Amino acid sequence: MIKIFGDPISGNCLKVKWTCERLRIPFTWQDVDIMQGETRTPSFLSMNPAGQVPTVLLDDGRPLAQSSAILLHLSQGSDLIPPDSYDRAKMLEWLFWEQYSHEPAVAVARFQVKYLGKAPGELDSKLVERSHAALKRLDDALAGADYLVAGRLTLADISLVAYTRMAGDAGFSLADYPAVDAWVSRIEAELPIREPR
Amino acid sequence: MIKIFGDPISGNCLKVKWTCERLRIPFTWQDVDIMQGETRTPSFLSMNPAGQVPTVLLDDGRPLAQSSAILLHLSQGSDLIPPDSYDRAKMLEWLFWEQYSHEPAVAVARFQVKYLGKAPGELDSKLVERSHAALKRLDDALAGADYLVAGRLTLADISLVAYTRMAGDAGFSLADYPAVDAWVSRIEAELPIREPR
Repeated sequence: MIKIFGDPISGNCLKVKWTCERLRIPFTWQDVDIMQGETRTPSFLSMNPAGQVPTVLLDDGRPLAQSSAILLHLSQGSDLIPPDSYDRAKMLEWLFWEQYSHEPAVAVARFQVKYLGKAPGELDSKLVERSHAALKRLDDALAGADYLVAGRLTLADISLVAYTRMAGDAGFSLADYPAVDAWVSRIEAELPIREPR
Repeated sequence: MIKIFGDPISGNCLKVKWTCERLRIPFTWQDVDIMQGETRTPSFLSMNPAGQVPTVLLDDGRPLAQSSAILLHLSQGSDLIPPDSYDRAKMLEWLFWEQYSHEPAVAVARFQVKYLGKAPGELDSKLVERSHAALKRLDDALAGADYLVAGRLTLADISLVAYTRMAGDAGFSLADYPAVDAWVSRIEAELPIREPR
């Protein structure tokens, strides 16, 4: 059975959990406390030298890291990956954009406010600007669309919803991004996501 | 024919060029000058709302962005993607790690020194620390290995070599990372990469 090493405060870890639940892949979950340095112990680093969660041990005990790589691996052959080659490429585009332009803005802002105790007004102005740019881009993409790619639920939605739904933790209001707001509720219901926002 | 919109100063753009060359995929290259704001024009943003290079127009004229998504799309069915499922997952792990933990350190440091005129000693200390951590992780992975995954050239090598070979531009010496240094030369020769370091 797959074993997920994850911290429940991490949207990246929850993505893996939701994907397993959606695909009915049995898993066990081992809590790893980032704030307590548990990703920096020798035993953790032997699984993932990058010292990051999520890290999973697959059925055969081999480790795999990077949330999006894990999602793609677990979802092979499932309906979470579009069969059309271009749709699949656009889904990958969203997965890489999320890790490069969305997560390092929205998730970092949220972490600083919710876990390091910063006031939203104390956030670095560039971080705030990049977060709003990411939310705006999502809002534009979702105007008139129920999903990010292929007109149905894919890994792109699972990846992007994780920190977008938590944007309020950093003081960003999803009411300012109505297409995003509606999409978050839709994906939360469809997956379904049980974790409270 | 595929059209690559790229800036030759960008390793992310060169990855796409090298992959096309390696796979003998015909392409045209349209220079886009990042420093002159050419990724922010209405016509560019209509292809890629994220305003980033590389962006490609595929054979049928449809746009695709995010270097790693482009690499994966162009390389479908080629020997740059390992046939083994676990090897493929590990390759994806490297692709996502590169965009999250390597490029935002090494490439950003290089950009600040080479194109914004900072002295290496003026770089933010955390940026320097993250760059060395990324190079160290690569060095550990390449100790005793000729390639990152599957014992042969894959997209992981193409992705990681792009900014690693330019690390000297930011004042980092590859001589401090001997396994990386040898691997860079090996990949440069094998692809081959014609751009001078």
